[in-house]
Amino acid sequence: MKIAVAGLGTVGAGTVKVLQDNADLLSSRSGRSIQVTAVSARDKSRDRGVPLDGYAFFEDAVEMAAKADADVVVELIGGENGVAKDVVEAAIKSGKHVVTANKALVAHHGTALANAAEQAGVTLNYEAAVAGGIPVIKSLREGLAGNKLSSVYGILNGTCNYILSRMRNEGLDFAEVLDDAQRLGFAEADPSFDIDGVDAAHKLAILASVAFGRNVDFGSVYIEGIRQVSQLDIQFAEELGYRIKLLGIAAETDHGIEQRVHPCMVPDSAPIASVEDVFNAVVAEGDQVGTLMLEGRGAGAGPTASAVVGDLVDIARGISLPTFGIPVGDLRAAEPASMDRHFGAYYIRLTVIDEPGLVADVAAVLRDNDVSMESILQHGRDPGEQVSLVMTLHETEELRMVSVVDAIADLKGVVERPVMIRIEDF
Amino acid sequence: MKIAVAGLGTVGAGTVKVLQDNADLLSSRSGRSIQVTAVSARDKSRDRGVPLDGYAFFEDAVEMAAKADADVVVELIGGENGVAKDVVEAAIKSGKHVVTANKALVAHHGTALANAAEQAGVTLNYEAAVAGGIPVIKSLREGLAGNKLSSVYGILNGTCNYILSRMRNEGLDFAEVLDDAQRLGFAEADPSFDIDGVDAAHKLAILASVAFGRNVDFGSVYIEGIRQVSQLDIQFAEELGYRIKLLGIAAETDHGIEQRVHPCMVPDSAPIASVEDVFNAVVAEGDQVGTLMLEGRGAGAGPTASAVVGDLVDIARGISLPTFGIPVGDLRAAEPASMDRHFGAYYIRLTVIDEPGLVADVAAVLRDNDVSMESILQHGRDPGEQVSLVMTLHETEELRMVSVVDAIADLKGVVERPVMIRIEDF
Repeated sequence: MKIAVAGLGTVGAGTVKVLQDNADLLSSRSGRSIQVTAVSARDKSRDRGVPLDGYAFFEDAVEMAAKADADVVVELIGGENGVAKDVVEAAIKSGKHVVTANKALVAHHGTALANAAEQAGVTLNYEAAVAGGIPVIKSLREGLAGNKLSSVYGILNGTCNYILSRMRNEGLDFAEVLDDAQRLGFAEADPSFDIDGVDAAHKLAILASVAFGRNVDFGSVYIEGIRQVSQLDIQFAEELGYRIKLLGIAAETDHGIEQRVHPCMVPDSAPIASVEDVFNAVVAEGDQVGTLMLEGRGAGAGPTASAVVGDLVDIARGISLPTFGIPVGDLRAAEPASMDRHFGAYYIRLTVIDEPGLVADVAAVLRDNDVSMESILQHGRDPGEQVSLVMTLHETEELRMVSVVDAIADLKGVVERPVMIRIEDF
Repeated sequence: MKIAVAGLGTVGAGTVKVLQDNADLLSSRSGRSIQVTAVSARDKSRDRGVPLDGYAFFEDAVEMAAKADADVVVELIGGENGVAKDVVEAAIKSGKHVVTANKALVAHHGTALANAAEQAGVTLNYEAAVAGGIPVIKSLREGLAGNKLSSVYGILNGTCNYILSRMRNEGLDFAEVLDDAQRLGFAEADPSFDIDGVDAAHKLAILASVAFGRNVDFGSVYIEGIRQVSQLDIQFAEELGYRIKLLGIAAETDHGIEQRVHPCMVPDSAPIASVEDVFNAVVAEGDQVGTLMLEGRGAGAGPTASAVVGDLVDIARGISLPTFGIPVGDLRAAEPASMDRHFGAYYIRLTVIDEPGLVADVAAVLRDNDVSMESILQHGRDPGEQVSLVMTLHETEELRMVSVVDAIADLKGVVERPVMIRIEDF
């Protein structure tokens, strides 16, 4: 089987290296040899730590996708549009299978690309696009094929998990850890895709499509990042028996498919609470299997190459499945559930100054909105000093909580808009 | 695709129910309908909570395997020999694919059955045989196909993990928890297969074959169960920052393939330490992916049916892989490593009476065997009273440790043979 690799960054070079180093093993597993025949990058001369002699070199990746002597094109350029999309479309059009690690591309154009692949009779694999080396697409699409899934959720962004882990372990503020993470290479120079939750949302939209047999619907993902997570909230979480994690959660609800990415408080006894640093984890809830959790490295050359080569071995073995597990024509509409209808428990933190009757006023707001308190926490204060007043609230609708927060923000003695963090009681 | 189900216990009835309840979903995912056509059990009249009308009923499962109008035979009878083996052999002989949940059968006869299936051009799937609903065979055989694996290990027996979890959480002794587990249905009336480590060893032998491309070699698995784990050791483990788990561990070493099942001390910060109660977990270490952990339910009707139906959907989709990931002719010899050559860290607990110079004598034994101490722990004692003296020892060879324990057992003041538990520093 002949492979053309578009993009020779760390992941591209790493993939070529695995195909070279593990060649015998791969051909024994695949029943045929897997050979790189063509590569494409902007700069031919750069040393990438892997021999590229004997491969056709293309400066134009789209040209390679269309014309190279290859059965499969591996797209490792990245980006939701532009060259990456052109490469994948050209490969499909010329009857080549595609393996991609491009989450933005699949999240934005997944259904259309799946349709094109189906029409052309080629396979579109993208295991590396979600949670790096964790075989989560394979597990959902094949291993759990006997299940109706009710939800799939996880820690989908290693940068955020690394930052939150260090904030908790070292008592540092977000900005300090982000600076350090950038210095150490765990966060990009422009970190917004990661820390604002967009990267996790891309992955979540793909997971939701596979789990529920729906069109990919990135536009409906509710997204909040971790910039607003404060050291104070991390400490209160700890005191309440929770940890703060950025989760992507997709669930079938009575109102449609809920897709949301935001900081969550999870019980510290939940397996996902122990997933630390750059590790990713995905949990699926199935009607037969119950709870299944997969944990591993979500990024980096090795884990990404592991997923890409796994996809290639599948193709070499003749395994070809519908992109999202069922034929494109069978995918149902996305039916997004409004975040207003989200039903869950909440943590709120008020900054208040000593004011007689304040707790009574807050309690009245809760009563008027039919929201009931589970616990309340306030440490000693001196008169006139600002202090945090923390509450956890029993399950209610998001829309009610927004009213509660609006009303509390207006109370005399409440200094700033209350912080609200959703609680997930896994 | 037509299915014949041999064995209608909870798992068999559960599998039939999933095939009925999720029929539309399964045919959308498979691209064809999956229909039960025949079933077999000893007693036709028993109510199994699932309608069986319209299925051919066979009292003789072997006859069904040979003669039923079916493309696939699902073997859910169990047992390493006898009817289960005859059923699988008859099915293969008559050109039917086989799906089985039978770990004993695959552990004892895996290579021979794989060879028979390969000769007959049929598929032999057994996802449910290892770790129940966790898609671990699929992950190793397909998802991680790009990796050279160096080790695979896990919590492979839910009964043992349940007992050890309760011993730790409730401070109870082994016998008490076992009694209660039997009463609650978490342990069998004859629990020896579980608590003596045989069931975990069956699963480990299968994992090792898939991970390393070797003949299945159950006979070479070193096996120790959990009967000897005492409350005292659980408490000392806690004090030292460890938890005691029954692990199955397979690894490539310089001396061959190590396969061992025994109680281990694992750091309480290791992800596998947090896998509690009846949950199973499997960890794979690959040259590309790094550490991957899969955690879920390892037994019960739902999880087992999930794995069985996943295997059926694979066959319906036309996915047919060599049983252990590569053709039988490519499987290398098992090359077992002797347990004497195992290299690792150790915990030992001595029961001693106050004796001047005892610690010096113990230290001399360690020195003479070139074993070095990492830590020593002893709580206050009254003169003449028996007391525990606990040590952790740096990595050394098992053979040396056996000499150390023999020599210490002979020392004056040492009351009984020291307890030795291996430490795994994941």
